[in-house]
Amino acid sequence: MSGSFIEISEVGPRDGLQSISPIMPTEAKKAWIAAEAAAGVREIEVGSFVPAKILPQLADTAELVAFARTIPGLTVAVLVPNLKGAEAAVAAGAHKITIPLSVSETHSLRNVRRTHAQMLEETAAIAALIQAQPEGRRPKFEGGLSTAFGCTLEGVVPEAKVLEIAEALMKAGCDEVGLSDTTGYANPAQVKRLIRAVRSVVGDHACAGVHLHNTRGLGLANALAALDEGITTLDASLGGIGGCPFAPGASGNIVTEDLAFMLAAMGYETGVDLEKLLAVRDVVKAALPDTELYGFTPDAGLPKGFSGAWGL
Amino acid sequence: MSGSFIEISEVGPRDGLQSISPIMPTEAKKAWIAAEAAAGVREIEVGSFVPAKILPQLADTAELVAFARTIPGLTVAVLVPNLKGAEAAVAAGAHKITIPLSVSETHSLRNVRRTHAQMLEETAAIAALIQAQPEGRRPKFEGGLSTAFGCTLEGVVPEAKVLEIAEALMKAGCDEVGLSDTTGYANPAQVKRLIRAVRSVVGDHACAGVHLHNTRGLGLANALAALDEGITTLDASLGGIGGCPFAPGASGNIVTEDLAFMLAAMGYETGVDLEKLLAVRDVVKAALPDTELYGFTPDAGLPKGFSGAWGL
Repeated sequence: MSGSFIEISEVGPRDGLQSISPIMPTEAKKAWIAAEAAAGVREIEVGSFVPAKILPQLADTAELVAFARTIPGLTVAVLVPNLKGAEAAVAAGAHKITIPLSVSETHSLRNVRRTHAQMLEETAAIAALIQAQPEGRRPKFEGGLSTAFGCTLEGVVPEAKVLEIAEALMKAGCDEVGLSDTTGYANPAQVKRLIRAVRSVVGDHACAGVHLHNTRGLGLANALAALDEGITTLDASLGGIGGCPFAPGASGNIVTEDLAFMLAAMGYETGVDLEKLLAVRDVVKAALPDTELYGFTPDAGLPKGFSGAWGL
Repeated sequence: MSGSFIEISEVGPRDGLQSISPIMPTEAKKAWIAAEAAAGVREIEVGSFVPAKILPQLADTAELVAFARTIPGLTVAVLVPNLKGAEAAVAAGAHKITIPLSVSETHSLRNVRRTHAQMLEETAAIAALIQAQPEGRRPKFEGGLSTAFGCTLEGVVPEAKVLEIAEALMKAGCDEVGLSDTTGYANPAQVKRLIRAVRSVVGDHACAGVHLHNTRGLGLANALAALDEGITTLDASLGGIGGCPFAPGASGNIVTEDLAFMLAAMGYETGVDLEKLLAVRDVVKAALPDTELYGFTPDAGLPKGFSGAWGL
């Protein structure tokens, strides 16, 4: 394991900012994206192509894609809820497009007012749109399996349902599927089991990333379980911004800084310079003075003598 | 793994209370111990036999041992820094005695003003004391390897030194050794490696427990790594009380509630009733109104439909 490359995919500018009410100015977002890319993060989800009246926080996504594309080596990812969003994403030149599909149909209806069948139709239409692009301009297309580990509305989400939707997303034309613990229900045993099951259906290469939350404090333990199964892309949010419906400390997203520290200490390559990453917090804090940033490693600092791989 | 029994060893009344300045009244400590035992926790470190002028918070340890011994099925554990403390512990009737020995000699000198050689002499004297007790009244004797994963003073602590001290503690008469991440420096890869190495020296049965901190957010990930290696006893502190020199969220100890949730969700047996365990917080809060209790699971609540093993 030690020595392998793990991609940290920063989702703060999308998942983080959509969950808080203050609207970060576009220039501040650019500064954040630039600083985090300069710290070595190679994939950043910069926004979501949703109507501005629904998520005014993300209304500048097209401009951010254009900006982020100018940063060498950076994979510019976006979320799209439908074909219209995908058209905008393709026009803007996003490198990676994710459509979230909630395995809990109750959640899907509540969230985007669409059934599974309707979402799969949308997925197929997006896949056709991408295929119609000239080679070299086709973004990678991911189906994000939301509520894959449980649902606040339905409770347990049956594994069979996850596999069914994963297979359907691939048939509809996704390049890969990602498992998402939208509700913070996952545990490490379940993470291992579900990754193995989904991979047995779609193939290892088509299930490479997971989006885990830290709602019940298990975020990094779940990430470790995912690494053990060979997952190579882990989503995280700087300062754990986003998805925080609870009291202080109960952050939604995994904290990028803590994840990066864990990976570095374990000897994984991430390309991330931890000192520079910790400094990115100042950029975000300056633009969001009233938003609390979480993170244990930022509070405690790096261990004395820490130089990448620790205690080896 | 699922189905095996994991011992959660509550260290809050010792490690927690020694780290905060308010002194919890003895009756409140008894209520805490009783409530947590009633919630199913089967091992509790109730205090430390140190001079009251050094740790006035723990001056009532003998009384707590006597009280806790009346609770059926509870293993009553205490910490002792030296022979004098062990004499008091044996007289009080503790079931388990731990002597901490810092693998970092700088830390040992700073903390207890003793070299390794002096601490090992003390350990041998305690072992002799225990052996002199009538059979059936001999407490289990553990050597706790503090700073085993790194030291705030020395930085990296060489693995060879950990093995040397582990072997020396066993030779001095300990029944087992425990690995302690006193400084919150451990990472999962290191946890696995060090457990394996120590077990190769002392035998699997003689290295069954770990004391992990959550200083950099890796506490539960490290616990998971320890479980993967077959560790069967995990220390934790209710509300994460203790060892918290940093900002909010940067708790020192692993939070008992989060650990218990993770274990239950993974299908491990712990004997703990999670609802009852969460209610123990009220007992502690009432006695320590100014001390912040941490924990993600307490803030977020248990998942909808959670009934012990989740998502199976």
